[in-house]
Amino acid sequence: MKVTVWGENIHETRDAEHMASIYPDGMHTTIANGIASLLGDEVEVGTATLQEPEHGLTAEVLDATDVLVWWGHLGHRDVDDAVVDRVHERVLAGMGLLVLHSGHFSKIFKKLMGTTCSLEWREVNDTELVWTVRPDHPIAEGVPHPIRIEGQEMYGEYFDIPQPDELIFISSFTGGEVFRSGCTWRRGKGKVFYFSPGDQAYPVYHHPDVQRVLANGVRWAAPSPSAGFAVPAVVRQPPPRFTVADLERMHPGMQE
Amino acid sequence: MKVTVWGENIHETRDAEHMASIYPDGMHTTIANGIASLLGDEVEVGTATLQEPEHGLTAEVLDATDVLVWWGHLGHRDVDDAVVDRVHERVLAGMGLLVLHSGHFSKIFKKLMGTTCSLEWREVNDTELVWTVRPDHPIAEGVPHPIRIEGQEMYGEYFDIPQPDELIFISSFTGGEVFRSGCTWRRGKGKVFYFSPGDQAYPVYHHPDVQRVLANGVRWAAPSPSAGFAVPAVVRQPPPRFTVADLERMHPGMQE
Amino acid sequence: MKVTVWGENIHETRDAEHMASIYPDGMHTTIANGIASLLGDEVEVGTATLQEPEHGLTAEVLDATDVLVWWGHLGHRDVDDAVVDRVHERVLAGMGLLVLHSGHFSKIFKKLMGTTCSLEWREVNDTELVWTVRPDHPIAEGVPHPIRIEGQEMYGEYFDIPQPDELIFISSFTGGEVFRSGCTWRRGKGKVFYFSPGDQAYPVYHHPDVQRVLANGVRWAAPSPSAGFAVPAVVRQPPPRFTVADLERMHPGMQE
Amino acid sequence: MKVTVWGENIHETRDAEHMASIYPDGMHTTIANGIASLLGDEVEVGTATLQEPEHGLTAEVLDATDVLVWWGHLGHRDVDDAVVDRVHERVLAGMGLLVLHSGHFSKIFKKLMGTTCSLEWREVNDTELVWTVRPDHPIAEGVPHPIRIEGQEMYGEYFDIPQPDELIFISSFTGGEVFRSGCTWRRGKGKVFYFSPGDQAYPVYHHPDVQRVLANGVRWAAPSPSAGFAVPAVVRQPPPRFTVADLERMHPGMQE
Repeated sequence: MKVTVWGENIHETRDAEHMASIYPDGMHTTIANGIASLLGDEVEVGTATLQEPEHGLTAEVLDATDVLVWWGHLGHRDVDDAVVDRVHERVLAGMGLLVLHSGHFSKIFKKLMGTTCSLEWREVNDTELVWTVRPDHPIAEGVPHPIRIEGQEMYGEYFDIPQPDELIFISSFTGGEVFRSGCTWRRGKGKVFYFSPGDQAYPVYHHPDVQRVLANGVRWAAPSPSAGFAVPAVVRQPPPRFTVADLERMHPGMQE
Repeated sequence: MKVTVWGENIHETRDAEHMASIYPDGMHTTIANGIASLLGDEVEVGTATLQEPEHGLTAEVLDATDVLVWWGHLGHRDVDDAVVDRVHERVLAGMGLLVLHSGHFSKIFKKLMGTTCSLEWREVNDTELVWTVRPDHPIAEGVPHPIRIEGQEMYGEYFDIPQPDELIFISSFTGGEVFRSGCTWRRGKGKVFYFSPGDQAYPVYHHPDVQRVLANGVRWAAPSPSAGFAVPAVVRQPPPRFTVADLERMHPGMQE
Repeated sequence: MKVTVWGENIHETRDAEHMASIYPDGMHTTIANGIASLLGDEVEVGTATLQEPEHGLTAEVLDATDVLVWWGHLGHRDVDDAVVDRVHERVLAGMGLLVLHSGHFSKIFKKLMGTTCSLEWREVNDTELVWTVRPDHPIAEGVPHPIRIEGQEMYGEYFDIPQPDELIFISSFTGGEVFRSGCTWRRGKGKVFYFSPGDQAYPVYHHPDVQRVLANGVRWAAPSPSAGFAVPAVVRQPPPRFTVADLERMHPGMQE
Repeated sequence: MKVTVWGENIHETRDAEHMASIYPDGMHTTIANGIASLLGDEVEVGTATLQEPEHGLTAEVLDATDVLVWWGHLGHRDVDDAVVDRVHERVLAGMGLLVLHSGHFSKIFKKLMGTTCSLEWREVNDTELVWTVRPDHPIAEGVPHPIRIEGQEMYGEYFDIPQPDELIFISSFTGGEVFRSGCTWRRGKGKVFYFSPGDQAYPVYHHPDVQRVLANGVRWAAPSPSAGFAVPAVVRQPPPRFTVADLERMHPGMQE
């Protein structure tokens, strides 16, 4: 399974001193390393960033990607629409997508959701507790109840998303807010998982439970073996499947 | 619309002094009065209790009830199975049902859900905040975001229920817990709304926002005008709806 | 309640002879008249078409519209993106939207769904049966089970849509295909109802049961009284809702 | 993974001649063999029948069962309530459950659903087409679209079940009916899959695509590795998770 972790890589230069202290190689690298170390031989993990040609998401890279992980914040507007369309098409064709934290406002997430994806936020060093409300779900496998994250931006409701197909995690914050922090949706043949913990101000992606959720998410979002990566397409004028022979074969004699 | 509020009416004698101070006429009466005062001429509200013959839920009473509201706690086991079956059948036939707070462990709720309906609880005077996650829903109409309840038992996840058809409210508690506090499900032709605020230790049913939610819930759970109150039944050997004439009428000539 | 029925109004001139025989005043007019005659004083129904300035969907018209009904087919690409964005924003702010038949490929529907909205189709005069799978739902109120439509384009699965919040109707066709023909979703504060019967080749919008479904759909999609028509927005830096006083008020002494 | 296929084993003696011609070793054996041959070393498959002590579902057998497959028809009432309760508890604790065809009226399925599970039926040798409406789902892996079953009892809507968590298959019948023929629900920690094809009058369980669906269903319903098989239980008086220290650590100085 090939995983590509995309990071916008802007805070890394803009807030260089701070970022160097918690993400010296960039957030995307820490995220990628966490997944790779937990899933081992199951995965091959690469990274891509906004600054690369085509943001590192060329047709070639995407065609070889089974699951894409997305972290963005300040640079949403700078992501090229053509790249967004390419990612969108690949998701509908079966590629898994993990959208993290401030990625809720990314073009690709809003395009898949159809809503504003607005929320409440507050940046004052809240404690976040992440509670599992779907204990049988593979994404919650091996995760404590709750996960405790000391130091996190608050994301609160109302979170303007379509009703999730599966609601896996709900978070609370010291200030009293709640947030649907782990949600899944199907779009086309692709699986989408949104997971909210992970602000650039805190070392959240070093948290072992957060890493576990991301690894579980990657595994869950993997395309089915026979996906074929074709976007669902129109089928024109198929022949009828019932014929007069089917009707004539019906008979009134057999009773239950 | 006829509403029946059922209360087990046990704390009222067991904890007489405390209850007299906040629910002098019984919790069921306070709940019923709140609904009646908000919905006015729209509803006719009665009450029934565990101690009455057939717990006050005779076939006659149920046949005249459009929406039943249920509060129970200590007496779940004392509710007669035949009455539970009668309520169950009436719900499947179209009667609305509101299940409140500790009613999560009532026989009727567990029978409708099919799960244990277990949860976490703590009784130490938490503050509960009730957040709306479905702002368009009629049950959330006119309700502040969040509702603030100072003094409430904590109910926390994991709440062992089937995935709600609609998740309307999520609560947080001072201790950091979260709870899916407002959920709906369809069962047969009936609508079920579970709302968790409302412990006997606190005057929660005097809270104007809680009363508003209950009134909204009653209105939402009302049966459709043409419900007919017949339980969904088996249909045996209906005639086929397609005939050879339908197949022969198909023709290849018309193209889009 | 103000209802606007939008029709692309292209077949009306392109297939003038055929259309004159079944929709002499245009499909949009027939659809609008059906709704008006069933809902009477409850609604004020207007129409708008592709050919009008801003396709008849000016900010002024939309600001006065509670529920928009959309029929399009050949002209999807000709709908201006700015108008689509305006409709989209209005839906997220609370306006109801009914999307009909070939409107599955309209820009507005695809933008709200996030998927391709592809399907199978065949145009050979199938019989369509529309089965209710949610008998309690207001959209199915007063509708026979099944609705029988003799003469209809076949729309079949796989229909590439997000999982509906509510699946109300499933259709079968003489050729053996099935289709999720009545689906709802919430997007922002707005309600969306897709209903598939209604090809320009057949007089489907004169069918009394189809008219009943559309009238029910309009009523169901109406915004809540206090919607306020504001798009869900970001809330920045709200103050914490829990304080030290909340924590200190918790005490271990009260036991259930 | 240990799989137990339960069959009521009544038609096998009552309609002995017919059954000998298509299920000479009993339906449960054919079902079990189909799963075993497709999943190979992944599974160990056993069978159990109504006539055995405790219907072959002793505590010992269930404690060793990861996924239970259930086929019943004439003998629903003869299944002991204590055995049903034991199966129910095991499902809530994480055991997967596949309910087949006329098992829709089994005690265990009705107990898990909370509804009547009524439907339409007709026994006149219909052709059934099984359409996939969730192409990414592992249960639909490797299955043609549609599956064609020439010779099957008709099961039609309205099927009185709770809204499925996932709707995977919809069937059509020659007579024009439709049916939600492949549905999943979570109950407690257990996964439930209902699949309707499979009447005793026809050799449906020899159909390779039907066998594929059952094998996929078994794999999907397997408990998560760390399920632990404990029924979700009440947690009493947990300590608060937020403390004054959490609140005091919040500070207003960090702005996004």
